[in-house]
Amino acid sequence: MRTWLSVLFAALIPLGLLASNFHGQARSPALANSQPGLRGTGDLGVIIERASGSVQIIETTGQSSLARIKGLGDLSHASVVFSRDQRFAYVFGRDGGLSKIDLLQQTLAKRIIQAGNSIGGAISDDGKLIAVSNYKPGGVKIFNADTLVLIATIEATYGDQGELSKTVGLVDAPGGRFLFTLYEAGEIWMVDCADCAQGAKPRLTKFKNIGLQPYDALISGDGRYYIAGLFGEDGMALIDLWAQKPAVTRILDGYGRGQKKLPVYKMPHLEGWAKADNHYFLPAVGHHEVLVVDAKTFKQSGSIKVHGQPIFVMARPDGRQIWINFAHPRNDTLQVIDVKTKQIIKQFTPGKAILHMEFTPRGEQVWVSVRDENRIDVYDTRTLKKITSLPANAPSGIFFTWRAGRIGL
Amino acid sequence: MRTWLSVLFAALIPLGLLASNFHGQARSPALANSQPGLRGTGDLGVIIERASGSVQIIETTGQSSLARIKGLGDLSHASVVFSRDQRFAYVFGRDGGLSKIDLLQQTLAKRIIQAGNSIGGAISDDGKLIAVSNYKPGGVKIFNADTLVLIATIEATYGDQGELSKTVGLVDAPGGRFLFTLYEAGEIWMVDCADCAQGAKPRLTKFKNIGLQPYDALISGDGRYYIAGLFGEDGMALIDLWAQKPAVTRILDGYGRGQKKLPVYKMPHLEGWAKADNHYFLPAVGHHEVLVVDAKTFKQSGSIKVHGQPIFVMARPDGRQIWINFAHPRNDTLQVIDVKTKQIIKQFTPGKAILHMEFTPRGEQVWVSVRDENRIDVYDTRTLKKITSLPANAPSGIFFTWRAGRIGL
Repeated sequence: MRTWLSVLFAALIPLGLLASNFHGQARSPALANSQPGLRGTGDLGVIIERASGSVQIIETTGQSSLARIKGLGDLSHASVVFSRDQRFAYVFGRDGGLSKIDLLQQTLAKRIIQAGNSIGGAISDDGKLIAVSNYKPGGVKIFNADTLVLIATIEATYGDQGELSKTVGLVDAPGGRFLFTLYEAGEIWMVDCADCAQGAKPRLTKFKNIGLQPYDALISGDGRYYIAGLFGEDGMALIDLWAQKPAVTRILDGYGRGQKKLPVYKMPHLEGWAKADNHYFLPAVGHHEVLVVDAKTFKQSGSIKVHGQPIFVMARPDGRQIWINFAHPRNDTLQVIDVKTKQIIKQFTPGKAILHMEFTPRGEQVWVSVRDENRIDVYDTRTLKKITSLPANAPSGIFFTWRAGRIGL
Repeated sequence: MRTWLSVLFAALIPLGLLASNFHGQARSPALANSQPGLRGTGDLGVIIERASGSVQIIETTGQSSLARIKGLGDLSHASVVFSRDQRFAYVFGRDGGLSKIDLLQQTLAKRIIQAGNSIGGAISDDGKLIAVSNYKPGGVKIFNADTLVLIATIEATYGDQGELSKTVGLVDAPGGRFLFTLYEAGEIWMVDCADCAQGAKPRLTKFKNIGLQPYDALISGDGRYYIAGLFGEDGMALIDLWAQKPAVTRILDGYGRGQKKLPVYKMPHLEGWAKADNHYFLPAVGHHEVLVVDAKTFKQSGSIKVHGQPIFVMARPDGRQIWINFAHPRNDTLQVIDVKTKQIIKQFTPGKAILHMEFTPRGEQVWVSVRDENRIDVYDTRTLKKITSLPANAPSGIFFTWRAGRIGL
């Protein structure tokens, strides 16, 4: 699971770098839970209601809300992965809480507090392991996905004093592996945990001196490239996991925050890299631009002027459109780029604090959270018209069950 | 839905071109249906049992069989698509039967005979429409996916006499569209049916003179390129659906059957195009080779010698491995290519008549049907070891529910 908003809320709040205001109004629209029971799970999803420590379970066929699950603790940042059968959602909360929600019974099936301060998680490709990335104590814990029983603890030690580093950018990779970055240590660690469910110890590979303060990372959709963003310097760290002997190379020099040309209201999250038409489209840091990068060479080939500092730059699953939201104070606007022409073809102003977007797996709908309006808007991506809206308490992240079948999500 | 085996069994049998023997033994292993009920549907699938007109419902988490559904008519070729909630499987049979299976209740929810001879189908991106490609009468019928009520009939007329062409290569495309080819007419038709569920008529775009006898087609995973194979001449017909004014261009001259250099035991199906590492890997026709084609230019850049005439050349979802089965008489063997090195890293001989393969969505397992052994084998793609086997009646196609969330599947 890419740590997405987790980075915005967890990497930056504790680091004191956050400029915008995150206090959502916690009005509580009434929501009668639907009858739980027999139904398919391919069209389900969850919406984080950050101010009230709850999530809504929704379905995208009729675009309706099915239930609200409360008692999930501090969701001021939160991210979600799904079990391989798509029945259970695992919610990673800020307070170190790991909650397992049964989407069919509409219950909190299990909840543990596994650390003091956590930042996101991932599920192994075989669905047997849940890994969680922690700030306090710094490291990664690995759990049995069924029982949430602890299987392994990986302490993110570095230096001579046995210090523990915050860990971020945790993702799954094919072959039962996980990767994450160590913020203070400036390292990337790969964990081979293919047999951990059968009692084997995790096998670690450490990549050192990758650059200063890796604050987030992503893995390409094919699980081949792991790319870490650096807060402390320009450029990014890339590992080609297909290499005979994987090693770190530096890409996109000049990308990042190092030169501080503009005030940066939020560091854009790296999940907001869209791949389309053999290029990556990614948010420029501090500039009102989307950068276009050749997906083969990782060199910049162009840029597109946009409304504000982009946060998420997300491709519709077919790669034809890119939807963008922006940092405060321009966070009331969405723009849509046509990938073929690289033109902005539509602009919306749904309201204040547009925090996240999620496409249905074949891309005909996109769901948008408008936190300060306590609303989710659903758009038809063909007509570019709004289909419906749903009330939600200060909604932030939106996660659909199709992620269960994707690498790195 | 790409028509995959449908092409082998339906395009070639009636055309009298089929050399191998398709008479499976219809031994019937006992199978006690499991208790139907509440469960996630993300790890479900169906296996076609061609000789007995039945399908098995299986699950990939514990690798077990859950139920057998009988009474599906002639499945001597058959293909399957899934509802967007992944609860229902739509089975397209040879006899024109369209069957809707409830994977949770383990029942045949509905069955209609919609034509005299049919060849495959597709589901629209919004999940509202089922389209079926028919030989007799030649054309495409479109149904309400919930009720199987007929919504539209598209007669594949051509020439001056009002003849009807067989239709093949039917796929869905983004924006509520379908595409298919007309075998006798040498045409490709695109159907815009975005509003058909609300009563609008299908809008047709016809591409004429695309080449002789288009016998199958595929759409790229992003829904951008539609590519038809030509039985009557070399080369293939390509449409870029992103073009301002889409038109047919010819690619891969020299590819196809035109020169008849070797006896062709089966025309390879076009779903057997693997995309990995910026290349397509595709079965050479009549040669013991896999061709490597640049995914941007559609020009051949190399080839890989393999065990026999390849039928399916399928990429593991991360694109790192390619698994290949072969035409009669070499159809007892599987080979695995490492995409990075382009070397064959493993060969298996599971038994006679290996007909199909299906990966789990994140690629850690592959399921293989071994028709004449009445067996399904499941492999771990990391260790390249067999995990388990399941009995099945002359199994052919294997289809997992993750297809619901993919374009063109």
